[in-house]
Amino acid sequence: MASGDTGDAERVFDVIFTCDAVNGGTMRTDMQATMVEPDHATFDLATDEGAFHGGGGTAPTPLMLFAGGLSACLMTQLRAFSKRLRVDAGAIRLHTRLHWRGRQRGREPYVTEPVAFTIDIEMDGAASLEDRLRLIEAAKKGCFVEQTLMRPNTIAHRLKHAESWVDA
Amino acid sequence: MASGDTGDAERVFDVIFTCDAVNGGTMRTDMQATMVEPDHATFDLATDEGAFHGGGGTAPTPLMLFAGGLSACLMTQLRAFSKRLRVDAGAIRLHTRLHWRGRQRGREPYVTEPVAFTIDIEMDGAASLEDRLRLIEAAKKGCFVEQTLMRPNTIAHRLKHAESWVDA
Repeated sequence: MASGDTGDAERVFDVIFTCDAVNGGTMRTDMQATMVEPDHATFDLATDEGAFHGGGGTAPTPLMLFAGGLSACLMTQLRAFSKRLRVDAGAIRLHTRLHWRGRQRGREPYVTEPVAFTIDIEMDGAASLEDRLRLIEAAKKGCFVEQTLMRPNTIAHRLKHAESWVDA
Repeated sequence: MASGDTGDAERVFDVIFTCDAVNGGTMRTDMQATMVEPDHATFDLATDEGAFHGGGGTAPTPLMLFAGGLSACLMTQLRAFSKRLRVDAGAIRLHTRLHWRGRQRGREPYVTEPVAFTIDIEMDGAASLEDRLRLIEAAKKGCFVEQTLMRPNTIAHRLKHAESWVDA
């Protein structure tokens, strides 16, 4: 790279979030979600289940937070990149639909799998169809949640046992 | 299956959530998240970004909702299955850590990828180590979010254009 030419320099950055969750015995879970990198911020979150699933209905269910996280992550990239790519998107509306299937044998714990995920997008602005599609393509590549869902991920679990940690 | 023997019958059930999101031009997104199947419930959600990312800090960020959705989904299965499997888990605490990396060339929109996801689990109850590990294994299989993250998913996008829908 030529000295002073920073236009094509690749910048690599880490994005790290943590979530501390506690459950005392009901279906309600209380959480602190924290952005650790690249900035620092913390918000309290909670989930509960409806009476159908033995909960008190005091907060959204876990899958509502998941659906909101996916929708809002894509939305935020659409908004941010609309400015960067100078695409007049105007107000943006998304309708996300997430479909899973569960299977349960007798009284055993059920097992689950995703079936179909769709996101319908509407933009009020004056941008051409070509520019709208270009914006969506960039937002998909920049959306942390969508990029995560597109590939198989390993989640490493550890259980605390007698003051040490065992793989779980 | 013998008549009257329902102990091993496989029950298949669908779980469907929708999320309607609107963004008027700032980094704040307002949403209605709805459970469509197997029960019906709706909650309002919102996300925003901090000043760092051009937002007003009025709500959690999208990745906080995502981290909360994953943590709470596993937690809810741990709690539900602890009763079903008769494992004395007591109060349960999770520490989830989600690490992504972004790459940006010049002023182009950045692209992102997951790096490492970990969940540390603590249980206060009297259950044996074997029972705790059995409970975690069942919860992983029943956790909608974890089962989704473990496999590659296609998200189908459609853009509304001139009163019809085009694939995006």
